[in-house]
Amino acid sequence: MTDVPTAPDVPGAPDVPAGVTIRRPVEADHRRVVVLVDDWWGDRRLQHLLPRLWFQHFGGTSWIAESDDGRVAGFLVGFVSPDHPERAYVHVIGTRPNLRRQGLGRELYRRFLEDVAGRGVRQVRAITWAANRGSIAFHRRLGFRLHDGPGTSPIYGVPAFADYDSEADDKVLFILDL
Amino acid sequence: MTDVPTAPDVPGAPDVPAGVTIRRPVEADHRRVVVLVDDWWGDRRLQHLLPRLWFQHFGGTSWIAESDDGRVAGFLVGFVSPDHPERAYVHVIGTRPNLRRQGLGRELYRRFLEDVAGRGVRQVRAITWAANRGSIAFHRRLGFRLHDGPGTSPIYGVPAFADYDSEADDKVLFILDL
Repeated sequence: MTDVPTAPDVPGAPDVPAGVTIRRPVEADHRRVVVLVDDWWGDRRLQHLLPRLWFQHFGGTSWIAESDDGRVAGFLVGFVSPDHPERAYVHVIGTRPNLRRQGLGRELYRRFLEDVAGRGVRQVRAITWAANRGSIAFHRRLGFRLHDGPGTSPIYGVPAFADYDSEADDKVLFILDL
Repeated sequence: MTDVPTAPDVPGAPDVPAGVTIRRPVEADHRRVVVLVDDWWGDRRLQHLLPRLWFQHFGGTSWIAESDDGRVAGFLVGFVSPDHPERAYVHVIGTRPNLRRQGLGRELYRRFLEDVAGRGVRQVRAITWAANRGSIAFHRRLGFRLHDGPGTSPIYGVPAFADYDSEADDKVLFILDL
């Protein structure tokens, strides 16, 4: 279902931009990430997506990337669903705009899939705004399909849930079967 | 540390207002709860605290209360920390304003403590705004202490973390040792 390598022994060096290293996030990273998010995502007001709790309780299935000047290069915050242990969810993934299309987002996802596949997860889900063409193309390249089942209707040419998280919030649901 | 009963065999009927029943939330409850939250909490803009994911993945440690006319009477959304399995976190608890001071919030907490104590949790944490005197008094009545360790300073007369989730967001941290 996917062309994302999930085995821990992927041959060759990780496919990330030069000088970028990846590690587990810690609570102290929260502020550094939060101040960046709006800039990275076209000035949407997104700080509310990342309260500190994600960095306190979900670090074990999340990743942060830094460039060698110490700046945050990207991050992924995800978890295994307590209600559906065979399912994992990526809450937020972001990369610095000038580092995009260089494999960093793919590498963050590869590590997350490795994390959760080892815990019995069989399906990964994520969402984005129906208008976010960049994220939709990225997830499609990783092998995700767009859910087009009950509850969805075409919005901006993609199947989306209207009023998903709140009023006038139209979301696309990505699904990847492992 | 607390006067909240945590044993599953608490004698007598649950101490909730007449006509109120409590069950596990499901995803379909998300919209019903989200449209209420701002009203209940003095028109703070809080919908962003409750994206749909909480109702998709954390229902097994959450509760929703309804009155016999079918309206939402209260809810609690919480989880056991994946990074710290001995710790649980209450993300949001709310009760309908005209049902407060009747034991419903306490009963929601009692059920949550019962949930998590059975999974090995030894400490429960929650936060609120430093100015939220009602929530601070409520948590104190339940036996929570206000964390006053490193990183806190007095704000509105209580120990609080400045800029906790975002700029100018001052939060009090409640801790209950089981």
